[in-house]
Amino acid sequence: MTGDDTRFMALALSLGRRGAGRCWPNPAVGCVVVRNGRVAGRGWTQPGGRPHAETVALAQAGEAARGATAYVTLEPCAHHGKTPPCAEALVAAGVARVVTAFVDPDPRVAGGGHAILRQAGVEVTTGVLEAQARRHHAGFLSRVVQGRPALTLKLATSFDGRIATATGESRWITGPEARRLVHAERLRHDAVLVGGGTARADDPQLTVRDMGAAWQPVRVIAARHLTLPRQGRLWDSVPDAPLWLLHGAREGDVKPEAVEAWQAQGARTLPVEVAPSGQLDSAALLSALGQAGLTRVFCEGGGALAASLLQAGLVDRLVGFTAGLALGAEGQPSIGAMGLDRLAEAPRFRLSSVRQVGADVMHEWERA
Amino acid sequence: MTGDDTRFMALALSLGRRGAGRCWPNPAVGCVVVRNGRVAGRGWTQPGGRPHAETVALAQAGEAARGATAYVTLEPCAHHGKTPPCAEALVAAGVARVVTAFVDPDPRVAGGGHAILRQAGVEVTTGVLEAQARRHHAGFLSRVVQGRPALTLKLATSFDGRIATATGESRWITGPEARRLVHAERLRHDAVLVGGGTARADDPQLTVRDMGAAWQPVRVIAARHLTLPRQGRLWDSVPDAPLWLLHGAREGDVKPEAVEAWQAQGARTLPVEVAPSGQLDSAALLSALGQAGLTRVFCEGGGALAASLLQAGLVDRLVGFTAGLALGAEGQPSIGAMGLDRLAEAPRFRLSSVRQVGADVMHEWERA
Repeated sequence: MTGDDTRFMALALSLGRRGAGRCWPNPAVGCVVVRNGRVAGRGWTQPGGRPHAETVALAQAGEAARGATAYVTLEPCAHHGKTPPCAEALVAAGVARVVTAFVDPDPRVAGGGHAILRQAGVEVTTGVLEAQARRHHAGFLSRVVQGRPALTLKLATSFDGRIATATGESRWITGPEARRLVHAERLRHDAVLVGGGTARADDPQLTVRDMGAAWQPVRVIAARHLTLPRQGRLWDSVPDAPLWLLHGAREGDVKPEAVEAWQAQGARTLPVEVAPSGQLDSAALLSALGQAGLTRVFCEGGGALAASLLQAGLVDRLVGFTAGLALGAEGQPSIGAMGLDRLAEAPRFRLSSVRQVGADVMHEWERA
Repeated sequence: MTGDDTRFMALALSLGRRGAGRCWPNPAVGCVVVRNGRVAGRGWTQPGGRPHAETVALAQAGEAARGATAYVTLEPCAHHGKTPPCAEALVAAGVARVVTAFVDPDPRVAGGGHAILRQAGVEVTTGVLEAQARRHHAGFLSRVVQGRPALTLKLATSFDGRIATATGESRWITGPEARRLVHAERLRHDAVLVGGGTARADDPQLTVRDMGAAWQPVRVIAARHLTLPRQGRLWDSVPDAPLWLLHGAREGDVKPEAVEAWQAQGARTLPVEVAPSGQLDSAALLSALGQAGLTRVFCEGGGALAASLLQAGLVDRLVGFTAGLALGAEGQPSIGAMGLDRLAEAPRFRLSSVRQVGADVMHEWERA
């Protein structure tokens, strides 16, 4: 591994980030084609997942790809899908060397991409900036390996951990800078997820606003009985951004006319197994979202959904915003009942960053 | 104001900090005597409040004080107490110029110190590093101006704002680095304050440990009915560090034998007015501590005491430690019921610092 290798892989990763949130179910790959130390082509997975990053970068490089080195944030694909595999495209373009961050665990690739390249006489180096690349591709990896998207949980609270007053007033606890960062986080994820209680209490749009966003993440609402008002901001905004409704799969969980009405409005409905607690089973809920193609989900509460995701060990990353006000014990808790008796049973997270954002504190944690 | 003036005043402030926490009821003044640009004497208020900083610095300077400049973090005193006033001592030592940070609002001084100096032909400059000095002397100022000590409230919680599990397990939510900083904060305050519920649940020692501390802050417990166990760590530790017990002043609030037993053990008991809520009145509680001479108090909970102090607008500074674990809604809240309906009624604080401490986040806030 050379200094150039890490430098160009870092560039490929930053290109890959441009696709994040809108290329699911495919990974947000970045690719750089370098000839004689100069960047000849740059690419990233395009909206909807195609074309792949390598295809874009090779097209931009044209003849300059011959004898060049290609940096790819993930092993190039080896399987014939809607297009020929990228490993073959790299060979066909005459690339002399391919540098990747790690082997794609997708069983249809799993070293096959590297093998195609090596068999064609292309030099292959892997493991460059692997840790960073695995973090960048965490959502894709989670979906391939665990069958569910990576999950970020957001908590925006008073300094005593409350998300609203006893009467439900919650606008605004945190300041405009923190709320803007929340919109930026929504945009970096494939989907935004909230529980039915939050949807009923706040009637949120859950869209990305004032960010010049060219697309909207999928909005997902987990509401066992689908008793959401068929009017208001959420209902009216169905044409503006995809809305998926997760409801109970048990007999009698939902009224057929509710499902039909939401479908007619343009929403997608997905049945999910119900847990013994009576809530939608949180593991089944995430599996359903993984099967539907999502790789990164941003959960914004409420307390009951947050608690069930934490209890089930399904939260990969936690983003907290703490505001400088106290609401007291009657305020609504950010995390609902978890049934913990002992400290040792509490789910733990490792601090990854902390800083001031406007008047609030932003803290990020990763699963410990 | 010259660059030298601010430099030497900053030195005087750093010396003053050495007295903080053990010179109450007097202010933790720092003093530097400078002759021809060289420091000839340094002093700070000594344990118990005497000698004053100026006396110490002048004694160290000796003959070098003649024609020198004295930097004092607060206007020198003008009143005859146990010793002659410092303003007169500065004149007698032949100091040519005195630089102070601000006028002492104590009615026994209130410009009188500066007047004595000017009348004797000493040049007086004031207002140097005034903001920093006022912050340093906040406890003294609060006691003189408002008749109560400055109050810091500490909250050490899970990231959902809980201080213990439903079963009361609280050791440890935060890590050893955060706990060490809590001990350092105790040492910077004149006293540590907790509610009776916390004292009964945790039987805490509330002493400063493993810091090489040469003294201990006063330990104050607010327990209306004085129903604290007369055995265990707190009871046994009375000889090791001062213990003050605040109890209700109403007829029948305490059993006389409880008061007598604690006094015999060596504790001090102070009756305090009871609020309509049935708790000790928080303003009366702090007034009693101010009358007893305390200038800086560090409150460590529990939730009921924290809520009543916040509700009454008596919290000047807030120190939060947030740990990377979730305890859920059954966990014990860091702040008890506050009776708030509207966000606009919530007490607000301004962030003054945030950083990582061990595995936890430390955030400091000041009254907005």
